[in-house]
Amino acid sequence: MFRVIGLFVAALLGLASVCFAQDPGGAATLAENLQAPVDYVWVLVCGFLVFFMQAGFAMVEAGFCRAKNATNLMAKNTIDFTVASLIFMAFGFAFMMGDDYHGLIGTTGWFLHGSNYDVGRYLVFFWQLVFAGTAATIVSGAIAERLKFKAYFLYSLAVTAIIYPIYGHWVWGGGWLSKIPFGLGHIDFAGSGVVHTIGGFVGLAGAIVLGPRFGKFGKDGKPKAIPGHSITLAALGTFILWFGWFGFNPGSTFSAHQLRIAVIAVNTNLAAAAGAAVAILLVFKKTKKWDVGMMLNGCLAGLVAVTAPCAWIEAWAAVVIGAVAGALVVLSVYFWEARGVDDPVGAVSVHGINGVWGLISVGLFADGTYGLGTTEGPLVRGLLYGGGAGQLIAQVIGAVVCVSWALLLGLVVFKAMDKYFGIRVTPEEELKGLDIPEHGTPAYPNFYSHSN
Amino acid sequence: MFRVIGLFVAALLGLASVCFAQDPGGAATLAENLQAPVDYVWVLVCGFLVFFMQAGFAMVEAGFCRAKNATNLMAKNTIDFTVASLIFMAFGFAFMMGDDYHGLIGTTGWFLHGSNYDVGRYLVFFWQLVFAGTAATIVSGAIAERLKFKAYFLYSLAVTAIIYPIYGHWVWGGGWLSKIPFGLGHIDFAGSGVVHTIGGFVGLAGAIVLGPRFGKFGKDGKPKAIPGHSITLAALGTFILWFGWFGFNPGSTFSAHQLRIAVIAVNTNLAAAAGAAVAILLVFKKTKKWDVGMMLNGCLAGLVAVTAPCAWIEAWAAVVIGAVAGALVVLSVYFWEARGVDDPVGAVSVHGINGVWGLISVGLFADGTYGLGTTEGPLVRGLLYGGGAGQLIAQVIGAVVCVSWALLLGLVVFKAMDKYFGIRVTPEEELKGLDIPEHGTPAYPNFYSHSN
Amino acid sequence: MFRVIGLFVAALLGLASVCFAQDPGGAATLAENLQAPVDYVWVLVCGFLVFFMQAGFAMVEAGFCRAKNATNLMAKNTIDFTVASLIFMAFGFAFMMGDDYHGLIGTTGWFLHGSNYDVGRYLVFFWQLVFAGTAATIVSGAIAERLKFKAYFLYSLAVTAIIYPIYGHWVWGGGWLSKIPFGLGHIDFAGSGVVHTIGGFVGLAGAIVLGPRFGKFGKDGKPKAIPGHSITLAALGTFILWFGWFGFNPGSTFSAHQLRIAVIAVNTNLAAAAGAAVAILLVFKKTKKWDVGMMLNGCLAGLVAVTAPCAWIEAWAAVVIGAVAGALVVLSVYFWEARGVDDPVGAVSVHGINGVWGLISVGLFADGTYGLGTTEGPLVRGLLYGGGAGQLIAQVIGAVVCVSWALLLGLVVFKAMDKYFGIRVTPEEELKGLDIPEHGTPAYPNFYSHSN
Repeated sequence: MFRVIGLFVAALLGLASVCFAQDPGGAATLAENLQAPVDYVWVLVCGFLVFFMQAGFAMVEAGFCRAKNATNLMAKNTIDFTVASLIFMAFGFAFMMGDDYHGLIGTTGWFLHGSNYDVGRYLVFFWQLVFAGTAATIVSGAIAERLKFKAYFLYSLAVTAIIYPIYGHWVWGGGWLSKIPFGLGHIDFAGSGVVHTIGGFVGLAGAIVLGPRFGKFGKDGKPKAIPGHSITLAALGTFILWFGWFGFNPGSTFSAHQLRIAVIAVNTNLAAAAGAAVAILLVFKKTKKWDVGMMLNGCLAGLVAVTAPCAWIEAWAAVVIGAVAGALVVLSVYFWEARGVDDPVGAVSVHGINGVWGLISVGLFADGTYGLGTTEGPLVRGLLYGGGAGQLIAQVIGAVVCVSWALLLGLVVFKAMDKYFGIRVTPEEELKGLDIPEHGTPAYPNFYSHSN
Repeated sequence: MFRVIGLFVAALLGLASVCFAQDPGGAATLAENLQAPVDYVWVLVCGFLVFFMQAGFAMVEAGFCRAKNATNLMAKNTIDFTVASLIFMAFGFAFMMGDDYHGLIGTTGWFLHGSNYDVGRYLVFFWQLVFAGTAATIVSGAIAERLKFKAYFLYSLAVTAIIYPIYGHWVWGGGWLSKIPFGLGHIDFAGSGVVHTIGGFVGLAGAIVLGPRFGKFGKDGKPKAIPGHSITLAALGTFILWFGWFGFNPGSTFSAHQLRIAVIAVNTNLAAAAGAAVAILLVFKKTKKWDVGMMLNGCLAGLVAVTAPCAWIEAWAAVVIGAVAGALVVLSVYFWEARGVDDPVGAVSVHGINGVWGLISVGLFADGTYGLGTTEGPLVRGLLYGGGAGQLIAQVIGAVVCVSWALLLGLVVFKAMDKYFGIRVTPEEELKGLDIPEHGTPAYPNFYSHSN
Repeated sequence: MFRVIGLFVAALLGLASVCFAQDPGGAATLAENLQAPVDYVWVLVCGFLVFFMQAGFAMVEAGFCRAKNATNLMAKNTIDFTVASLIFMAFGFAFMMGDDYHGLIGTTGWFLHGSNYDVGRYLVFFWQLVFAGTAATIVSGAIAERLKFKAYFLYSLAVTAIIYPIYGHWVWGGGWLSKIPFGLGHIDFAGSGVVHTIGGFVGLAGAIVLGPRFGKFGKDGKPKAIPGHSITLAALGTFILWFGWFGFNPGSTFSAHQLRIAVIAVNTNLAAAAGAAVAILLVFKKTKKWDVGMMLNGCLAGLVAVTAPCAWIEAWAAVVIGAVAGALVVLSVYFWEARGVDDPVGAVSVHGINGVWGLISVGLFADGTYGLGTTEGPLVRGLLYGGGAGQLIAQVIGAVVCVSWALLLGLVVFKAMDKYFGIRVTPEEELKGLDIPEHGTPAYPNFYSHSN
């Protein structure tokens, strides 16, 4: 690994001979478009909010897992964005947003160098990077409490260099999925598919390869609840994610001149609320307890689902989409548990399943008031608004491709690592918790705790 | 309850026949006002910050209460914004900002539908919603550790459908209070009254109806301290609230073209600092301990108080207003405790009492440099700047109406629920903590804790 | 102390006779520059993010220290920004940004009064205040777990009234360091020196005067690890700081019309990532453990280092600068430990040492694509880009001055207080933890903890 780092640094130093193409200072870009500052401010501030979702994921995952693995979860949630930043700068961004090669992959922009040393390109990079980092970090919840840190380190490389950017190219980089001849092609406004379905199903692959945690299933095969160690941190994390999503969705206009951002913000919020309400009521109906964990996941499910359609729907549809997401997440959690899949924080259900629902919902609820990032040109219209089945078909195709790609590549990556060096910690380490054997530091050394 | 949900969803689906009035896409609005994007960005980003205050309230309340009720507090702090979002979209927004009916109530804009499907209206909705959600969540601190979750659920409906929006209409929706013939009418820049006094006094109503927690008062009637379970979370929450207040106050210009936003940001911060400093010094003088809880409440008290006057005063006045708030919150906490009212986090003192002080301070310190959201037209001027008593009278009238409305409606709502199904948990549940009986989940299952 | 407060309040009330110079309402400023709103929005929002770093510092310091001192750390992290706000408004801002007196100190702008009651001046004040508050709060980590609260209170006065603003004047207020005849004078884009080196070396002074905590060094003089009480809070704090740094660095253009903000955001992020990666890998090489604490400090070290050069470099250089910072922080932590300096959170290494590295890196990597907050006029060029040694010399001179000033004044302040009233708590208080003797409140009264 250190040789890899050495090569990486050597490559960087070789870049000192910069070619001053384009506009690194920004004056020319401003001269061309005097309205650019407000768009830059909008995209950057929204990007900062998306970055902050890293803190949200870290808190949700820590909160929903046990104290004995909290240090490990902090390590994973930090290293994935660290790796994403470096690898996406080196390779991922070029694969995703570089010049298109036959609709399959991008091929230019390595190391943000040369003609990419430009304020506009750096802006695009920043935006795409925080999305890549989100996709990467979703997985850590599904494989929590049993994966070796080294494997997570390497997985982070794979997802941000290959899995995420290539699929991203297909949808957002001018690739083939955006051009399939149904509706307006496969569309995904802010990434229900590109970010969440990818993250969720790579997570499913990891959870399958790893197998369940000790104690998750009884001898009779029945699932047991393994409560997380801090509901307050889980709630804090959910609020941070909800907050960050206001960057994620409205910022995806990539322009403040699209005043539709107000509609997107409202829709984002309503779906979250509807998801939370339905999830807590559904579980209450069954158990007579007001289940906070499920409410938080319902909220996140609503957010995931509305991410694809948020720009193309009216408020009432956001409520319906979120409500369905709130039900789906509950059913999905039970579904995977019943099939022996152990996903400690419900990442597959929240992000994977509801990402798919979000993609499909575009084909149903898009109401023809808004187009592809603009009010000019073709407007997006779903089944309920006389758009016919075209867009719906495009959405289903995209969803199938997305799930297949994520699951397949995810299985390849985790299986390959498992074969090569074994990705699961030893039973002793798992029972004791990963914090001390992997990191040398318990998360809470001043408190008396039990390992559950 | 499920029938209600069913009706709600049916109503939503009935909206699929949208009427495309106004400007849902935003192009026409932009064409009319090319400067709109920066205002949209400003309002949305500030609104996101106000939303994030939900996390701040959750952390402050959890931190100041006991570990055995932390799950319950997370549930309440999530459900109130959830309910607020859905109900305010359905009814509250129409009551508050819809077409005025004789100065009493708004009457249009149900479900954000029809002519409200418009980028500008959605922007107004988003802004008003995050304020409604703030008012709602203030109450949960005052009634913490003993209210049934179901009662909180229903209370949230009442406050966001009726109590908050109707009073809000009177002040911000063109209603009668804004037109009383003193000064420029009753004014409240960012909601010391509309949000905080309402929230604080509904909270007082709840605390009175519920009665004190077990152990709060000794047999001799003397109050005992019930320390919260995490000073770190309480401090984190306070910082989040302070941060969010920079959206709350400066964003209330609803326009970035009001460069007064810089003055408002400075004033907001100075009042917080002055409140914190005075509160900690006052308590130190009495107890010789540097009381962190009181410092945090002093900070919040300063923020609450400056919320009404922030746009109309100079920096030095913000310091004085905050300093008075810091003293008031200390005195108020002792005052209510001495009268047998148990307000676990001091919400009545922070929001209720200092909301009133904020309203009144406008009539004293407004310096005639700024008007009603503009530098043109009449400027706001208080007693100290030669404005006479007119504005002060308008502020006192508004404060009296605000307190009366909140307390009266709050008592009606909590009394009615109490009569109908009993709003307090059983003594056994209260002693054990609400987390397991109400939610089935302790907040911190991996740690050894005692219930205090 | 109460007499001081009384005088302060009396002084404030004396300000009621305002002089309406300049433009307190903002209309004239807007009329002069119709593009001002987006710049105001940018500066304010970035300033809010910088403010939020207060929460980050509080969480990092709490997380890396023991549970028995957590209340004390919350108190310190709140009081420093409180004091900073009030004192910087009264004096510090005038010293730093007031009219220059022979390159040494500013002399106008007391209490933000008179001609400073102006939207533009308030904007500058807000920005400079959040920076002053950052410098102040850095110190609390280095002197954690043994300093009397009273001493911290008084130290906060000294740093925000004198140490920070005077040095700040030399670099950012038109003072002598910005005019030394090498390169373009000493330059520091967002404050590697002005904020971080100052904070870090004042912290070193405090740590030296205080001496190490009990138990930090064995009888053989060898350092022992004293683990912090919450890795989750430390990680949360680091994410908050990383998030806030996106305000700190890009916002330092003080204008959204500098589209270079996109490059600055990318550079900021890459340095953080590189610092984190190198720090964790270096420690892993030595200990075979994935050290989360060091990764978090590596991340912060990268952020500190890139703060000075962020506007003048390309992405690859940000990676190199961050990578060096990640190594430096590890070496520096060992270095100071080996010399008997006890810095509980590594503040000296993160902020002090890497602040110096950041200043120097400008003289190496500045690539001549950007100037002093503009693309017009002279561009900044370092050794690697044919700029010769001039800029490097200016940077080294500034770094030497910065370290000397901070260390000297820091020693004076802490020594003077120590002589006058003794700044260290008693051994009994230290062993028991500062929370109860100083504040009367343990941070976590519901949990069973041990004091380590």
